Amino acid sequence: MTSAPAAQARAQAAPPARAYRRLGVEERRSQLLAAALTLFAHRAPDEVSIDEVAAVAGVSRPLVYRYFPGGRQQLYEAALGSAAEQLTLCFAEPAAGPPTERVSRVLDRYLGFVDQHDAGFSALLRGGSVVETSRTSAIVDGVRRAAAEQILLHLGRGAGPGQRQAGPRLRMMVRTWIAAVEAASLIWLDEGKQPSAPELRGWLVDHLVALLAATAASDSETAGVVADLLAQESADGPAARLAAGMLPVASHAAHLLPPA
Amino acid sequence: MTSAPAAQARAQAAPPARAYRRLGVEERRSQLLAAALTLFAHRAPDEVSIDEVAAVAGVSRPLVYRYFPGGRQQLYEAALGSAAEQLTLCFAEPAAGPPTERVSRVLDRYLGFVDQHDAGFSALLRGGSVVETSRTSAIVDGVRRAAAEQILLHLGRGAGPGQRQAGPRLRMMVRTWIAAVEAASLIWLDEGKQPSAPELRGWLVDHLVALLAATAASDSETAGVVADLLAQESADGPAARLAAGMLPVASHAAHLLPPA
Repeated sequence: MTSAPAAQARAQAAPPARAYRRLGVEERRSQLLAAALTLFAHRAPDEVSIDEVAAVAGVSRPLVYRYFPGGRQQLYEAALGSAAEQLTLCFAEPAAGPPTERVSRVLDRYLGFVDQHDAGFSALLRGGSVVETSRTSAIVDGVRRAAAEQILLHLGRGAGPGQRQAGPRLRMMVRTWIAAVEAASLIWLDEGKQPSAPELRGWLVDHLVALLAATAASDSETAGVVADLLAQESADGPAARLAAGMLPVASHAAHLLPPA
Repeated sequence: MTSAPAAQARAQAAPPARAYRRLGVEERRSQLLAAALTLFAHRAPDEVSIDEVAAVAGVSRPLVYRYFPGGRQQLYEAALGSAAEQLTLCFAEPAAGPPTERVSRVLDRYLGFVDQHDAGFSALLRGGSVVETSRTSAIVDGVRRAAAEQILLHLGRGAGPGQRQAGPRLRMMVRTWIAAVEAASLIWLDEGKQPSAPELRGWLVDHLVALLAATAASDSETAGVVADLLAQESADGPAARLAAGMLPVASHAAHLLPPA
């Protein structure tokens, strides 16, 4: 009954079978969810069966159904909700220090999460899975919203006290960058996690800085935000490296600039 | 049986009922598809019934099932395939003239399509619909691939003769920008099509140029592509406007640059 990957996952994740009767309701629920997450992380949801969840958790199939009468669908939604909470926690970063370094740390944690949940992450975001519903879409959208709020916070436009609300252009900018990060993560998984996570993170930070600069060219609110952000950057940080790297590009644009 | 919007759509789209017997098989199929597209464009697929498709086309419900025995699911997939073909045609643009102006024209046609298929476009890309399957996902992915190939062509890295294949960084860059365009389109629809389509298009072109410039800072292939592209830009085009608009931003980054 137990497949090789399931047995391997059980060895890593599940308590010994003799603990069977000792767990309370909440503990048991958490244990089943942990087993489900282990399986859903590395396989498409359609390929995970309740038998396997039971095997990984070291419990019987009817016990899984006692906690999750809706079967795989309900387990998947609960596991997804739990993964969404973990991911949202990754976004939290104190609003101090050079902003590009803060975003770098957030992205490092995010890419760590993507690395850990690779197949499940792809399956979820690519769509077309039988377990996908308006509820799973709502969970994913909630994570995207949380990511956008966190980035806006570091741009000085969070929901907190003393911060102004971002205008529509800045908000659209942040949300499109988040979509770009998501797309880059999927491509990264498809390409066997190439380039390295730090290299990908560096490029995603460059992407955000470039997008901020380009948006500042046509939106006065963003121009103000960018001036504030640049003042907080250090001469040996990511923004300085990008600025230096873009100087040769700027030299090729000399014919487009008004005479000095 | 006929709802008010269906009656309205019929008035716009359907031939008079007396044409019923005259159409050949292909013509009839096209007529049913056109009726389905009209309905699927402005409503979520779950809200469109075969009765309504029949009403809009001015035919009986059994006739719709004769052409599409799989009912709504089959009609939806056929309508989606037909919309995907239309959209792919929008991307075609001669490889001549300033590249930012070519991309502007492609985006104008793309945003025209999004405007015309607003509710259906949102429902499809947001996921969680009952008609979504691995087949519908594959159709959408095919459109994304076609868009990426077309953009790469204008970057001098198309699949055609005499062009080199793009490397992984440049390819990832184009695909993430396409994801950003898609996300921006959905936000644009959510926000009642604000800002205006030309303003959104201008910002999306700026986004691409900025992303190219930032990617050039760390990828030598992209640096070569950007130098070639900039040489084709004119002093009164989109790239020049962006370069001039970014000068004040650059002045705020002076402390990050190495001494001249």
